[in-house]
Amino acid sequence: MSSIYIFSPSGAVRDRKAFKKGVSVLKALGHNVQVDPDALSSHERFAGNDETRLQAIDRACESGCDVALISRGGYGLTRLLPKLNYSKIKKAIRGGTKFVGFSDFTAFQLAVLSKTGEMTWSGPSVMDDLALDEPDDIMLGCLEDLLSAQVEGSGWALKKSALDSFLEQSHPKCSSALTLAKDAVLWGGNLSVLCSLIGTPYCPSIKGGVLFLEDTAEHPYRIERMLNQLLLTGILKDQKAILLGQFNRYALNAHDKGFNFSKVLAFLRSQIKTPVLTDLPFGHVPVKICLPVGQRVTLTRENNECFLLWPHNHH
Amino acid sequence: MSSIYIFSPSGAVRDRKAFKKGVSVLKALGHNVQVDPDALSSHERFAGNDETRLQAIDRACESGCDVALISRGGYGLTRLLPKLNYSKIKKAIRGGTKFVGFSDFTAFQLAVLSKTGEMTWSGPSVMDDLALDEPDDIMLGCLEDLLSAQVEGSGWALKKSALDSFLEQSHPKCSSALTLAKDAVLWGGNLSVLCSLIGTPYCPSIKGGVLFLEDTAEHPYRIERMLNQLLLTGILKDQKAILLGQFNRYALNAHDKGFNFSKVLAFLRSQIKTPVLTDLPFGHVPVKICLPVGQRVTLTRENNECFLLWPHNHH
Repeated sequence: MSSIYIFSPSGAVRDRKAFKKGVSVLKALGHNVQVDPDALSSHERFAGNDETRLQAIDRACESGCDVALISRGGYGLTRLLPKLNYSKIKKAIRGGTKFVGFSDFTAFQLAVLSKTGEMTWSGPSVMDDLALDEPDDIMLGCLEDLLSAQVEGSGWALKKSALDSFLEQSHPKCSSALTLAKDAVLWGGNLSVLCSLIGTPYCPSIKGGVLFLEDTAEHPYRIERMLNQLLLTGILKDQKAILLGQFNRYALNAHDKGFNFSKVLAFLRSQIKTPVLTDLPFGHVPVKICLPVGQRVTLTRENNECFLLWPHNHH
Repeated sequence: MSSIYIFSPSGAVRDRKAFKKGVSVLKALGHNVQVDPDALSSHERFAGNDETRLQAIDRACESGCDVALISRGGYGLTRLLPKLNYSKIKKAIRGGTKFVGFSDFTAFQLAVLSKTGEMTWSGPSVMDDLALDEPDDIMLGCLEDLLSAQVEGSGWALKKSALDSFLEQSHPKCSSALTLAKDAVLWGGNLSVLCSLIGTPYCPSIKGGVLFLEDTAEHPYRIERMLNQLLLTGILKDQKAILLGQFNRYALNAHDKGFNFSKVLAFLRSQIKTPVLTDLPFGHVPVKICLPVGQRVTLTRENNECFLLWPHNHH
């Protein structure tokens, strides 16, 4: 049994029934769930005004729970970054609390990594994942592994076309089995949120890392513009590998005339030698693995099987 | 009579009739108009592939025309930035060619300012402005001023509510008439495009400047996230003034619950002492003044009247 503290650092939760269902799923798994008093607060589009959400983050830190899990993403964390109590967050993480979330939570995760060097988890949110009619088994399994501190890695398979595209990129060493990265800092999250941190003190400077990215409701031209920013800053070439999660919920239109996500991917691969692996089960999708942001990992690929491994975490 | 070279560095022109109408408006004003051979080319969503558009930019440089005017914005310049021939562009500008455009063209303008220190003009495009059923008189007047090299400044009026909001921001010195900036570099353009350059070698480092911004089809939360990035990078506090043009074509939704552009503006003003002036007639709107990017300007305000003045340009 683990203790889970649910809090709302970003957007307001509107569907209270779904929220309760998500909480009940965690309780049914045998966990002790505490809900922050402002988890359902609302101010404009936010889960309470800035002060309310800062206090909710403080309480998550003070909870002493095994996991501090966000209710949902949305928008709201970037404007809090200068006011976060980083020493309190660091103390909570060192004390054993794992912060878990994704999407807008990327801002928190990268700021914490940048300011404290501490690790957080990219993983589910209550509303996006646990409140689903049928929460995904892989997502639940990864969350359980994380809660039981048994998790030491995760893997996924490249679709045939994705493997072909990967091999087309010039990686002479990559023909069959290969360690693509060793002892490399895993970092990343939502592409839009990451790009909104570039040039600020809240964007970690990671060299030789493994960068994972996902986004939703962004047209491929916008995805390309953001990836191009990461290219032009030099961030991409400084990584050992780029992992692309799911990019979804965008609509192509008549003006695109064949421009699509595959073209973006081809452009990206034409610009860098850094291996770009796709199909990572992460993003605004039900099938979602948990990824330790700030953890040193080993990334291997054997044929179409990719593995991310990290040291056993004793927290 | 001026010579105008029309070229397409970004998105493909789809409406050829409208394009011809825009060209005819310029001809009717007595100008010698040259249309680049690839002005109407199309590759995916672009006005030709990267090489085609780079060559179109080269030809605009070689044209010797008084003005090189874009057909339209869209998307496509950021991915060309490392391949632009900056010395050729510099030579063309020094030779007297004024590059004019906006939106995606912001990438070109800021990259040129960053790499060469040369001045370009934020102003109309053929498709957005000249091809309109009734091209705006102010836009045409400003363009004529620019073409005749008579332009030495521009002014606009703050609406009463905008003046009140401006005065509410803590500017003790700003009660009546005031020079807000003197000999300050004017720069800026489209907010999304500017933000996509942060951290790259194509974002100019301007201290003590006057920064102008506009955007279209971006929800206020996204505008706030971008302005917040400019805040957190320190770019905003380094300016003498921020000029906000038009932010339009977004839809608020039920989740916003009162969050809107005014709230974004109030947040911005709560975070910095730099004066923020609104109502600048610039953006994705018909009423559009021409602004010299990279030019040193004086910014004054007297009651609700704002003036941007710059030295007579003999090019």
